[in-house]
Amino acid sequence: MQAVEIVEVGMRDGFQSVPTVIPTGTKIALMEGLYAAGIRRFEATSFVSPSAVPQLADAAEIINAASRFAGLDAQALVPTARQADRALAAGVRHLAFVFSVSPAHNQSNVRRTPAESIAELEDIVSGLSADICLRINVATAFDCPYLGRTSVDDAFRCLDEVFKFAPEAEIALCDTTGRVAPDQVSHVFTRAQERYAGKSWAFHAHDTYGFGIANTYAAWQNGVRIFDASIAGLGGCPFAPGATGNVATEDVMWLFESMGVRTGIDIDPLLLIAHEIQALPDAVTGGRIRNAMAARRRINAA
Amino acid sequence: MQAVEIVEVGMRDGFQSVPTVIPTGTKIALMEGLYAAGIRRFEATSFVSPSAVPQLADAAEIINAASRFAGLDAQALVPTARQADRALAAGVRHLAFVFSVSPAHNQSNVRRTPAESIAELEDIVSGLSADICLRINVATAFDCPYLGRTSVDDAFRCLDEVFKFAPEAEIALCDTTGRVAPDQVSHVFTRAQERYAGKSWAFHAHDTYGFGIANTYAAWQNGVRIFDASIAGLGGCPFAPGATGNVATEDVMWLFESMGVRTGIDIDPLLLIAHEIQALPDAVTGGRIRNAMAARRRINAA
Repeated sequence: MQAVEIVEVGMRDGFQSVPTVIPTGTKIALMEGLYAAGIRRFEATSFVSPSAVPQLADAAEIINAASRFAGLDAQALVPTARQADRALAAGVRHLAFVFSVSPAHNQSNVRRTPAESIAELEDIVSGLSADICLRINVATAFDCPYLGRTSVDDAFRCLDEVFKFAPEAEIALCDTTGRVAPDQVSHVFTRAQERYAGKSWAFHAHDTYGFGIANTYAAWQNGVRIFDASIAGLGGCPFAPGATGNVATEDVMWLFESMGVRTGIDIDPLLLIAHEIQALPDAVTGGRIRNAMAARRRINAA
Repeated sequence: MQAVEIVEVGMRDGFQSVPTVIPTGTKIALMEGLYAAGIRRFEATSFVSPSAVPQLADAAEIINAASRFAGLDAQALVPTARQADRALAAGVRHLAFVFSVSPAHNQSNVRRTPAESIAELEDIVSGLSADICLRINVATAFDCPYLGRTSVDDAFRCLDEVFKFAPEAEIALCDTTGRVAPDQVSHVFTRAQERYAGKSWAFHAHDTYGFGIANTYAAWQNGVRIFDASIAGLGGCPFAPGATGNVATEDVMWLFESMGVRTGIDIDPLLLIAHEIQALPDAVTGGRIRNAMAARRRINAA
C-alpha cells in the first residue's frame, strides 16, 4: 500500500497568522490532540524575532514540549543563521531553513538577496552536527506576490547552489501565493525530478483560490510523497476575510485516504482538533471536508 | 491555444436545490448576465413533474427565453420519454437525458431499472429528428449515495447499450456524490477512452468534499474538454448546511484560464452574477475564488 507523510504546519504557518496570542498550554494541548490523531511530523514553531511575531515567542517551550511525545518529529523554521543558533540551543533536532527564490519576497521577509540567504544557509550547514535533519523551504518557488510567476530556471539556479553543500536536504517547494495551477506544479516537479536524481521533495500548498487539493494531487502524480498542510486550513491573512491560506490537513488527509494512500492519520480525532482550531479567537480557517462531514453527521443523526 | 467548453448547469442543478421559487424574470435576467459574461451553453432547465419540482415549473418559458439569445445552446434535462415529449413540444433543440448506473439511485429518482431507462432512451432516440442534439447524463457513474463505489464494468455495460442506438451522443459522466477522488476520475476516463474511440465526453463534478477542482483537472488530463459547473457552486442540499454541491463555474473557469486554457468567459461579469446568486433567498452556495477575489479587491482598495 502506498503512503505519504503529512507535515502539520498549523503550529507555525497557521499560528503566526493569528493576531491574538494563543497560550502555550493551549498550543501544546492541540499538538497532543494532533499527535493522538496520528500526526508524527510537525513544523512546530519558528525561531524568529519575538517582537516581530509575538505569537511564536514561546518557540523554545514548544520544542521542549514536543520532545516529550514518543516518535514525534518537530521541525522548527529559521530564516537566518542567528535564529538557527537559537533553535539548536533550544534543542531543535530538525531545522527548516526558509528562503525565497524571488529577490523581492526574500528582501521583504529577511532583508537579504536569495544569494545572501543561501550563503547563510551554507554557513549553518558547515557547523551542523550530522544528527540534525535539514529541510529547506523554498518560498515563491512557483509564484511571487510581487513579481508574479517564478521562472523555473531561477528556482533551479538556487537549488544548484544549495545541493552543492546540502545534497541530502529535503526540499519543500512552496506555493506561497496559492495562485499556482496544477499544470505548473506538475511541470516544475517533473523538471526537478529530471534535473536532480534521488532527492527528497516536499510540496507546500496554499488553498487561497481553491487549488490546494488539485495542486497536491498534481505533486503526488509527479512522485512527491511529503506534503505540508495546516489543520483547519489555518493560515489566512486575518485582515482579508475570505482569503484563506494553507491547504487543510483534513482535506489533504482525506484526498489521500480516498485514493487508498495511507497517511497514518484518523479522521475523527483530527476533525475534533480542526473544530477546536476554528473556535480560536481571530482564527481564519479554510478547508472543505470539516463542514461537509459535520453536515453529513447532522443528516445521519436526524 | 487550447480551449474547453463550460456547460452552466446552475439554472437546472442549482435552481432545483433552492426551495423558494425564483421568479422566472429573475432567472432570465441571471441567464442574460451569464450570457454577457461569455457563457454560451446552459443546462437551462429540466422538464420534470411541476408538483415534484415547483422550482422548474417554468421550463417552457425558460426555453423560449433562451431562444432569443444569439448562439446560446440551451439543453434541457429529461428523465423519461414523456418529459422528452414535453421538452420537444416546448421547442427544446438540445435534449439531456439522465439515468443512473446504480439501480438503487435510478429507482429512487425515476422508479425504473437502469435497463428500463435505457430502453426508454432508445425509444426517444428512435423518434428524434436529426437536428436535435443529444447529451446523456450518466449519474452515479463513479459512486452512489446508496451503494457506494460504482463498478466501471457496470457503467460500461450501460454505455455499451447506449452507443448501439446513440453512437453520436455526448456522454457526461457525473460524480453525483462528490466523494470521488481524482485517481478514480482518471482511471474511469482512461478506460472509457480506450474502450470507446471517438466519442464526446463531458465531466460533471460536485465539490461537496472539496475535490471538484482536482477531479476536473484529472478529467482534463484524460482528454475531457466539456465540463459542467454551476455558478456560485449553487446546488447543495438546503437541509444540510455546509454540504455544498456542484463545482462553481467561476472556480472551473479560473482553473482553466490559470492553465492558459481558453473558456471564452470573463471573470468580472461572471463574479457579479455569482454574488447575485449568493444573495438569492435560501441559496446554498459554494466555490472558493469568489470570496478570495473579493478579499483581494478590499485589500487593493485599502
